[in-house]
Amino acid sequence: MPKTLPIDILAKAANQARGLAIDAINACKAGHLGLPLGCAEIGAVLFGEKLNIDPKQPRWINRDRFILSAGHGSMFLYAWLHMSGFDLPKEEIKNFRKLHSKTPGHPEFGETPGVECTTGPLGQGIGNAVGMAVAGKMAAARFNTADHEIFNYKVIALAGDGCMQEGVAAEAVSFAAHNRLDNLILIYDSNDVTLDAMADKTQSEDTAAKFEAIGWTVQTVNGHDMVAFSSAYEKAYAAKSGKPQLIIAKTEIGRGISQIAGKSAAHGEGGAKFADEARKGLGLPDELFYVSDDIRQYFDGLAEKRAQATAEWQKTYDAWKADNPETSKVLEDSYGKIIPARETMLAAIPVNTSGKAEATRTSGGTILNYLAKIIPAVISGAADLHSSTKNYIKDGGDFSPDDYAGRNVYYGIREHAMGAILNGIAYDGLFLASGSTFFTFVDYMRPPVRLAALAKLPVSYIFTHDSVQVGVDGPTHQPVEMLSALRCMPNVHVIRPADPEETAAAYVAAFERKDGPTALVLTRQDVPSISQVPVETRRNGVFHGAYIIKKEEGELKAIVMASGSEVLLALKAAEQCGNNVRVVSVPSMEIFNKQPESYRESILPSSCRNRISVEAGAAQSWYRYLGIDGKAVSIERFGVSAPGDQVMKEVGLTQEAVVEAIQSLL
Amino acid sequence: MPKTLPIDILAKAANQARGLAIDAINACKAGHLGLPLGCAEIGAVLFGEKLNIDPKQPRWINRDRFILSAGHGSMFLYAWLHMSGFDLPKEEIKNFRKLHSKTPGHPEFGETPGVECTTGPLGQGIGNAVGMAVAGKMAAARFNTADHEIFNYKVIALAGDGCMQEGVAAEAVSFAAHNRLDNLILIYDSNDVTLDAMADKTQSEDTAAKFEAIGWTVQTVNGHDMVAFSSAYEKAYAAKSGKPQLIIAKTEIGRGISQIAGKSAAHGEGGAKFADEARKGLGLPDELFYVSDDIRQYFDGLAEKRAQATAEWQKTYDAWKADNPETSKVLEDSYGKIIPARETMLAAIPVNTSGKAEATRTSGGTILNYLAKIIPAVISGAADLHSSTKNYIKDGGDFSPDDYAGRNVYYGIREHAMGAILNGIAYDGLFLASGSTFFTFVDYMRPPVRLAALAKLPVSYIFTHDSVQVGVDGPTHQPVEMLSALRCMPNVHVIRPADPEETAAAYVAAFERKDGPTALVLTRQDVPSISQVPVETRRNGVFHGAYIIKKEEGELKAIVMASGSEVLLALKAAEQCGNNVRVVSVPSMEIFNKQPESYRESILPSSCRNRISVEAGAAQSWYRYLGIDGKAVSIERFGVSAPGDQVMKEVGLTQEAVVEAIQSLL
Repeated sequence: MPKTLPIDILAKAANQARGLAIDAINACKAGHLGLPLGCAEIGAVLFGEKLNIDPKQPRWINRDRFILSAGHGSMFLYAWLHMSGFDLPKEEIKNFRKLHSKTPGHPEFGETPGVECTTGPLGQGIGNAVGMAVAGKMAAARFNTADHEIFNYKVIALAGDGCMQEGVAAEAVSFAAHNRLDNLILIYDSNDVTLDAMADKTQSEDTAAKFEAIGWTVQTVNGHDMVAFSSAYEKAYAAKSGKPQLIIAKTEIGRGISQIAGKSAAHGEGGAKFADEARKGLGLPDELFYVSDDIRQYFDGLAEKRAQATAEWQKTYDAWKADNPETSKVLEDSYGKIIPARETMLAAIPVNTSGKAEATRTSGGTILNYLAKIIPAVISGAADLHSSTKNYIKDGGDFSPDDYAGRNVYYGIREHAMGAILNGIAYDGLFLASGSTFFTFVDYMRPPVRLAALAKLPVSYIFTHDSVQVGVDGPTHQPVEMLSALRCMPNVHVIRPADPEETAAAYVAAFERKDGPTALVLTRQDVPSISQVPVETRRNGVFHGAYIIKKEEGELKAIVMASGSEVLLALKAAEQCGNNVRVVSVPSMEIFNKQPESYRESILPSSCRNRISVEAGAAQSWYRYLGIDGKAVSIERFGVSAPGDQVMKEVGLTQEAVVEAIQSLL
Repeated sequence: MPKTLPIDILAKAANQARGLAIDAINACKAGHLGLPLGCAEIGAVLFGEKLNIDPKQPRWINRDRFILSAGHGSMFLYAWLHMSGFDLPKEEIKNFRKLHSKTPGHPEFGETPGVECTTGPLGQGIGNAVGMAVAGKMAAARFNTADHEIFNYKVIALAGDGCMQEGVAAEAVSFAAHNRLDNLILIYDSNDVTLDAMADKTQSEDTAAKFEAIGWTVQTVNGHDMVAFSSAYEKAYAAKSGKPQLIIAKTEIGRGISQIAGKSAAHGEGGAKFADEARKGLGLPDELFYVSDDIRQYFDGLAEKRAQATAEWQKTYDAWKADNPETSKVLEDSYGKIIPARETMLAAIPVNTSGKAEATRTSGGTILNYLAKIIPAVISGAADLHSSTKNYIKDGGDFSPDDYAGRNVYYGIREHAMGAILNGIAYDGLFLASGSTFFTFVDYMRPPVRLAALAKLPVSYIFTHDSVQVGVDGPTHQPVEMLSALRCMPNVHVIRPADPEETAAAYVAAFERKDGPTALVLTRQDVPSISQVPVETRRNGVFHGAYIIKKEEGELKAIVMASGSEVLLALKAAEQCGNNVRVVSVPSMEIFNKQPESYRESILPSSCRNRISVEAGAAQSWYRYLGIDGKAVSIERFGVSAPGDQVMKEVGLTQEAVVEAIQSLL
C-alpha cells in the first residue's frame, strides 16, 4: 500500500461515487442521498486505499469487516463495492431497489458480495460490529500462535446520528469498551442532520466526551479532508491501547447538490431533482452511471495489490495449518458449519435417569455442556442471568480482556445489544453463538431476533422462566404472549420442550440449524421426566415438531395438544377422560408445519375436530390447529404476583379446566 | 420542614425499614434484599424528610413523583410507603408477594397507593420519570400564571446498575438533557454489584463524566451519609440550571446482613437466612415487622406537616381556579379524563369527500388535528418521523425549552424511550399522549407497550407504513408479523382502518379508551375512500371491531374477512365471485372479540365455514375466525425490496389469489 494518498484520483473517485448514487436514486426516485454524498471522501479513503479486503474473495477470513450501520445510505456501499471490483456490475447499480436485484433498498446479507450484514433498522449495525470484534478477538486468541498470526483483522462501522441515538448502540459501545475491543473502529458520520430536522432539534450532547467517559479513544476530523481522515484512521487502525476507536467525521450531508447540502432535505431522495446541475458541478459527463477509465484502472491495480496481500496471508495460513493440523480442522469445520451428526450429538447427551423433577433450564445447562464438549464452535453468554438461565459452559472460561478465548460472554444487562452482538458473531460465521435472558425480556431484543431470521443466521436464544409459573415476581416477569408473538415471526424456530429428553433434542435441533435462529423456551419450575414414554419417542418427536405422546385406544374421540410444562398436565387430564383421547406434544409448531402433509395428517387427522390446546400462554398460535370447534385452555390476560401454582389456578390453567374442555367436546 | 436533619430518628427508621424488608422477604422466601438494605438511608431522607408528598392524598397533583426504577427492590418502596402513612397497613407488608396483596413482587401501578408506576423491566422507570418530567414542564407552562404557581413538583427516580446499563435509559437520559428537564432527579444506587456478579464484570465506564457529557449535573456522595445525601439532594432539588440532576450514591448492597453485604449474593433473597443475626445487629427486637412507637409518632407528625403543606397549596390552587375558570376546567377535565362525547368527536371530523385516494397516515394526520382542537389534553410526537408519519399538530408548537407548552414532542431516533416516556406522561395522567414511528419498528418499543397494557394506560401509538407495500425500502422496513405479534398481547387494541372514515373512528376509539393502549396501524400508500358504503356504516363499524361491509344476496356461501388496505381488495375479489359472498371489514379483532356473542354471530355465522382472510401480514391472528376449513391469503415470509405493488405480487397478495381462495371453497 502506498504511503502517500493518491489524493487526486481518490477525489475523482469520490465524485464518481456521488454520481452513481445520484443516478441510481434518481432512476428509481427513492433512496437516501445524504450519506453517499456526505461520506464520499470517507468511502474513497476506505475502499480506494485502506481496507484490507480482497474483492475477489469477499469472504476471505482475515478481511477487514466494513459495516454500513446507517443502512439507508446503501448506495454508498453499492457504489464503492462496484468500483472496488466486487461482483456487483453496473447493471446492478442501475437496478437499485428493483425486484430481485443485488442492490436492495437497504443492504441485505447474502444478497450482495461484500455486504457483511443486513442493516437499516438503526443502531443494529453498531451492535453487529461489536459482535464481529468479539469474534475477531476470540478467533485471534483461539487460533493465532506464536509463530503465525492468521487473524488480525479490524472491524470498521460507519454510523450516523440515527444509529448513535438508539439505545442498542449505547449498550453495544459500553460493552465494547468494557471488553477492550481495540479491533473496532466506529466512524460517526456527524452531519448535524436527521430525517425530520437538523439534529440539534433532538440532540445536544458532547459525543467525544461521552465516548471518552465510556472508555473509547476519540478523534474528531473533517470528513471531507482525506489526508486528515486517513491519518486518524491509521492511528485508530494501529491502536493496541485496549480501547475501541471512535472517529467523529464532521461531514456535510448531501455534499455535491448545493440546493440541499447540509440540510435535512438532503437525507432522502429530495435532492435527485437537481441531478443535472449537480452532476455538472461534480465534473461528471452526460453519461449516467459513469466511471472513468483511469478510476477503473486505479481500482484494477488496487485489486491486484489486494490479491497479492491475500496470497501472502495464504502462505502464513498454509504454514499455520501445516503446524496445527488439529486446530486447523476445528477452524475449517467451524467456518464450514460442519458439526457432528445428529446421532452423535444425541448420543453425547446421557438420558436423564435421575428420577427427579428438574427445570428444563437446568436440563438445558447440562445438555449445553455436553454439546460444547464436542462442538468447539459453541459459545454461550447471558444478559447478567447466568445464575438463573443456567447456560454457563463449565471450564469454558469467561470472555474478557484476560481471556479472549473464554466461551462465556457476559453481556451485562443489555439484552438488545446481546441480540445484535450475537448476530455479528453469526455474520462472521466462525462461532456458533447463543445467549440467554428471561423469556419475558425477549421483547427487549426483538429487532435483532427479526434480523437473525431475515438474514438466516444460526443463532440460538435460551429463554428461561417461560410462563406465569415464574410466580412471585409478578406479571412484569411472567411471559404470556411471548410464544405466539415469536411464532408469527417468519423463519424463527420456537422450541418449548416438555422434559429433559425433549430438551436434549431441542438443543441438537438448534445447533444443527443452518438457515435461521432458534428460540429454546425453558421452564423455571421443575418438571418430571415423562418416563412412561420411551426416550427415543420424545427425542425424535422434537425433530418432527409434534408427535403422539399418548395414543388413543379404540376410536379417536379427541386430541389434546400441549407444549412444554403443560404436556404432563395434558396427559393427566386425558387420562381422566378415558382411552379415546390422544395427546400430542408440540415442542415446535414451525418444525411441525414443515413436515409432509401425510405426517401432519397422521398426528392431527383432519376428521377429528374435537381438539383442545393446553399452553400457559395466549392461544393465538394454536387456532390454526384448533379450528372453530376446538377449545383453548390458555391465558388471555396478564398474570399476577403469587406462587406459580397459585397463579396457574388464578388464571384457570388447571387439570380440571383441561378435563372440562375435553369433556365438553366428547 | 426542619432545616437540620433528625439524624437519629432517621437512622433508626432506616434500620426498621431494613427490618421490614428482611422480614417480608424472609416470610415468602423470595424477593430482593439488596436495594432495600443498601438504600435505607436514602429512603429515610426522602420519605422521612424531603419528599413533597401527602400520604393521605397519594394522587395530589403537585406531589413530587418518586419512581423506583429498580422495581425488584420493591420492599424498599413498600416499607417506606407503610412507614410514611400511605394506606398500606402492616398486614400488606406481611403479605408481600402473596396473591391479591397490595405488595406484589414488583411495584404495580393501580395496586398500591403511592406507587407511581409499574416497574421491574429494567430501565423503564427512568424513561417513565423522564415522561413525568415532560408532563411537569408542560403542566407548568400551560397552567401556571404570573400570579399563581400551581405546578412546581419534581420527579425523583431511584435506579441501579441494571437500569443504567439498559439502552432505554440511555435514550431517555439523552432526551432529558436535550430538553433541559431540570425538574428531574435521578438517584443512581451505585453498589458495584449486579445479579450475576460484581458489576465490574460487565461495566467500567466513568458514569459521572458520561452524564456530564450528555448534559446533566452530577454529584457523587456516600449513600449512607444522610447529611451528605441530603445536601446533594437539596442542591439538585433547587436546580434551575436547565440540567437534569444525577446523584451517584455509592452504597453497600445488602448493608445490615454482614454475611452478604457488598456482594453479588446480596441482590436477591440469599441473605434472608441470616435474618436473626442481622435483626440483632440492626437493633431490632424479636417482634417481626417491627416499627417502634417513636418512629410511628415521627411519621405521624410528618404526615400532619405534609397535610398542612398541601392545604397551603390548595389555597393557591383555589385562588388560581377563581382567576382562571376556563383554564381550570381544562385542567380538571384533563385529569378527570373527561373528553367530548363520541358523537361530538365524530362530528368534528368532516367526512372525506375529496374523491381522491389518500394514505390512512395522511387521513390520520388530518383527523388528529381536528381532535386536537377540541381535546386540549391531546399531545403528539414522533421518533424523528413526523414528516413520514404525518401526526404533527399544526399550530401546536414544538415541545422544547423555548416552549414547554408545545404539543409536538421530538423524541429523536429513540423509539424505546418514546414508549417509556409516553407511559410516564400517561401515569401522570394530565395529558393524552400519542407517539409515532414506522410499524416495523414497534419491535424497538414492545417493552413499554406491554407495560402500558399491563398498567392500563391510555396511550396511543401511530404506526404507519403498515405492510410490505412500504416497497423499495425492503424487508427490514416491511412489517409482516407485527399485526399478529401485537394482537396477542393482552389489553392492547390494534386498529387497522381501511379508509378515511374508518380512520376517523379509529382515532376516536383510541382517544376515548381509558383502560389501555391503542395501536393505530396506518398505510404509507394511498387507499381510496370506500364510498360505496355509507359513512355511518364505516365509522360505526370500527366501534364494533368488525362489520359487514358488503352483505351477500341470497344464500351465504362464503365470508371474506379483511383489514386495512386489503378491505378493498377483498371487496373486488368478492364481486368477481358472485352475490353470495359476504365481505367483513375487521379493523380491530380485540374490539370485535369484546362484542356480545349475538353480534359476533351476526357477522360471522358459525354455520358458514367457508371463510377467507385477506391481510398483508402473517395469518396467525386470523385462524381463530378461519378455522381449519378456511383459507388465509397472507404473507408467511419476509418481503423484498421492490415497488409496493410488485412486492404484493411477489408474495402472492393479489386479487387473483383472493378469488382463487374464495372459489376453492365455493
